[in-house]
Amino acid sequence: MCELLGMECNVPTDIVFSFTGLAQRGGRTAHHADGWGLALYEGNAARVFLEPTAAASSPLARFVSQNPIKTLLAIGHVRKKTRGPVSLANTHPFVRELWGRQWVFAHNGTVRGARNLKLGRFAPIGTTDSERAYCHILEVLRSSFSTYPRKVSDLWEAVAHVGGAVGARGSFNFLLGDGRHLYARCATKLCHIVRRAPFGRARLADEDVTVDFSQVTTPTDRVAVVSTVPLTTNESWIHGEPGTMWVFDGGKLRATLPA
Amino acid sequence: MCELLGMECNVPTDIVFSFTGLAQRGGRTAHHADGWGLALYEGNAARVFLEPTAAASSPLARFVSQNPIKTLLAIGHVRKKTRGPVSLANTHPFVRELWGRQWVFAHNGTVRGARNLKLGRFAPIGTTDSERAYCHILEVLRSSFSTYPRKVSDLWEAVAHVGGAVGARGSFNFLLGDGRHLYARCATKLCHIVRRAPFGRARLADEDVTVDFSQVTTPTDRVAVVSTVPLTTNESWIHGEPGTMWVFDGGKLRATLPA
Repeated sequence: MCELLGMECNVPTDIVFSFTGLAQRGGRTAHHADGWGLALYEGNAARVFLEPTAAASSPLARFVSQNPIKTLLAIGHVRKKTRGPVSLANTHPFVRELWGRQWVFAHNGTVRGARNLKLGRFAPIGTTDSERAYCHILEVLRSSFSTYPRKVSDLWEAVAHVGGAVGARGSFNFLLGDGRHLYARCATKLCHIVRRAPFGRARLADEDVTVDFSQVTTPTDRVAVVSTVPLTTNESWIHGEPGTMWVFDGGKLRATLPA
Repeated sequence: MCELLGMECNVPTDIVFSFTGLAQRGGRTAHHADGWGLALYEGNAARVFLEPTAAASSPLARFVSQNPIKTLLAIGHVRKKTRGPVSLANTHPFVRELWGRQWVFAHNGTVRGARNLKLGRFAPIGTTDSERAYCHILEVLRSSFSTYPRKVSDLWEAVAHVGGAVGARGSFNFLLGDGRHLYARCATKLCHIVRRAPFGRARLADEDVTVDFSQVTTPTDRVAVVSTVPLTTNESWIHGEPGTMWVFDGGKLRATLPA
């Protein structure tokens, strides 16, 4: 199993605070030591840091924490392998281009019979069930729309539908980004929080770190954070209902769909 | 214009020495300060560092230099923009998946009328002529072969053919990697060297750095390095003939094709 972290905001925000908590779960406070990755969008492109090693002891993970990059949309992952050996190709998040934008995907759980999922234009590079499921999802979207849909709720429905179909094969908690939206499907466990004014203090569960968000925000900021488990101990996280998918846009929860 | 750097070897090798020279040309010894990128393969997957800023003053570029990652195939680039604003999406190298492997591309020069190049499965994310030309190349390859060809010389010929066709539209020096081969097309300037036993000392042209390769190699190592201009002052670099393409595999120059 693995752990997921997503962030979607209405102003560029750095993910250092949350990523610090996630990185500790990559080998120190939890046993997710088989790789880590972090994708940070700039428009429709994403820069992606990936390592098939433990985040907690990674110099690159420390560098990323110490040199924050602000973004509107980020997806992170720490891996405890279930299927597929430890390698760069098997390290989440996975990235593909569709309709002139990068799509970023990370998965927690196991998909049974992933090899039976139909592929088309997108082929796995590694050997995980996760990447194959991801390639299948993109193929279903590609064959459903000729371009990025103007009516984005149609896209939300399509992602939820294929997410639910793949989810019938096992536990399929995932985060998916398209440069604009963060899609977050809950199969077994996923939670989120939307931080907005009045901002307060937050204390990490996995590291003795506290941030006073009122010092680093403006009153109109909205920052949604999604995680496998609550990353802070003194905030109220909303737990997802298994078989549903959240869609975030502009730091707001825009929809909760059956998935 | 931009500068290119490629490395292809028969044993995992770090690219720090050459990248140090390239990074200096990204804003210090040359005016290529609009972005830099470095892709390092592990099998058919590549990790890619990208920044739309000057490499010479980049903390990430310094980190990459100080924390070397060994690889069999690497492609680097520093950008001086000609088409398209400074942004992550316009930063080389570009990456796409085809036939279950990542393809990495970087370009030096300008392609006229790039918008007329036919696209299919691959769409540009940014606005450069380079990325559009790259998407066109991949589409031509995809439509020419159903999978990665067993007879790789057919693939070499196809890359050379489409490279030459695009090259008729301007100056099209490029480096392309497929996880196994490094393709290097010369339109105006490109040079290479194959370092092998007996290894000697090399001195960087752009920084007061010398390496004694005999201390860090074994007698069977072969390391091919391709660059826009010679990176060292005391070695004999082979200059490319305009309208030709080199193919490297296993640290050897395997073919020189009209392109």
